[in-house]
Amino acid sequence: MELDKFIRSVPDFPKKGILFRDITTLIRDAGAFRNAIDKFYEHYKDNRIDKVASTEARGYIFGGAIAYKLGSGVVPVRKPRKLPAPAIREEYELEYGTDALEVHCDAITAGERVLVFDDLLATGGTALATCRLVERLGGKVIGVAFLVELLELNGREKLKAYDLFSVIKY
Amino acid sequence: MELDKFIRSVPDFPKKGILFRDITTLIRDAGAFRNAIDKFYEHYKDNRIDKVASTEARGYIFGGAIAYKLGSGVVPVRKPRKLPAPAIREEYELEYGTDALEVHCDAITAGERVLVFDDLLATGGTALATCRLVERLGGKVIGVAFLVELLELNGREKLKAYDLFSVIKY
Repeated sequence: MELDKFIRSVPDFPKKGILFRDITTLIRDAGAFRNAIDKFYEHYKDNRIDKVASTEARGYIFGGAIAYKLGSGVVPVRKPRKLPAPAIREEYELEYGTDALEVHCDAITAGERVLVFDDLLATGGTALATCRLVERLGGKVIGVAFLVELLELNGREKLKAYDLFSVIKY
Repeated sequence: MELDKFIRSVPDFPKKGILFRDITTLIRDAGAFRNAIDKFYEHYKDNRIDKVASTEARGYIFGGAIAYKLGSGVVPVRKPRKLPAPAIREEYELEYGTDALEVHCDAITAGERVLVFDDLLATGGTALATCRLVERLGGKVIGVAFLVELLELNGREKLKAYDLFSVIKY
């Protein structure tokens, strides 16, 4: 299935000059959503993934489904001050601005094999911060996966230490 | 599986006097997460669910997995100004404050059968706003499902027009 046909491109969102790749038109289609999850499952099924770490908020839609299909646990990586128990934090740069991500200290056990997922790879800052959070807790990043990769922003370069997989490329 | 044993209770979060029910300790456990998703699947599998509408952000972790298992599409219900295309909005009251939710106008087609999911039922404001968004788009709310229900806040009363299912009750 050619999943790129299900993505809607919205000019000037969230601000002028940004061409926003909208995944809601893909996930509302049951067949396209299933096909996307199955592509990730096929790619990682032999990798013994203990946990899928995904980023707030759109990443969770896929992260939960991929974890379910792989038989893995789920690690929600959140914006600051959302997590109720002791957490660690990583700052990162966004395509437009800066932000930080947090994860619970007890979300990952040392030695666990973790798949990092986000819906979109832009500059790679979010994913790299997530990888660092996983590694600070002793986890091993088995792969970094995205539904959509924006090739011109070259986030792949920032993540070259990791095995990277993306389904739709622009 | 007794899923309530996997929930962590955190006193005074996000503010004094609130006993926060933390689901991260459930979802990090692959078996508990799978069991939770399967409970929703078993409950709704014969209901021909076209779409699962879930609320940002924790709701997405389950919403995506339930939709995958049921073979449904996904409708992300978001906080204001996050969605890139034309959307409708509903205001609602929180357990602590007020907020609003939005959904894309083209997320649901008239007549579609929709399962509304959120991780936690407190006062019911979030879920009721989600049901109204679904109905304003012509969708039929087949059920309203929660991982955790806080019985003392009586959100069930606010949602009495709908078939309600929750897995863990406090």
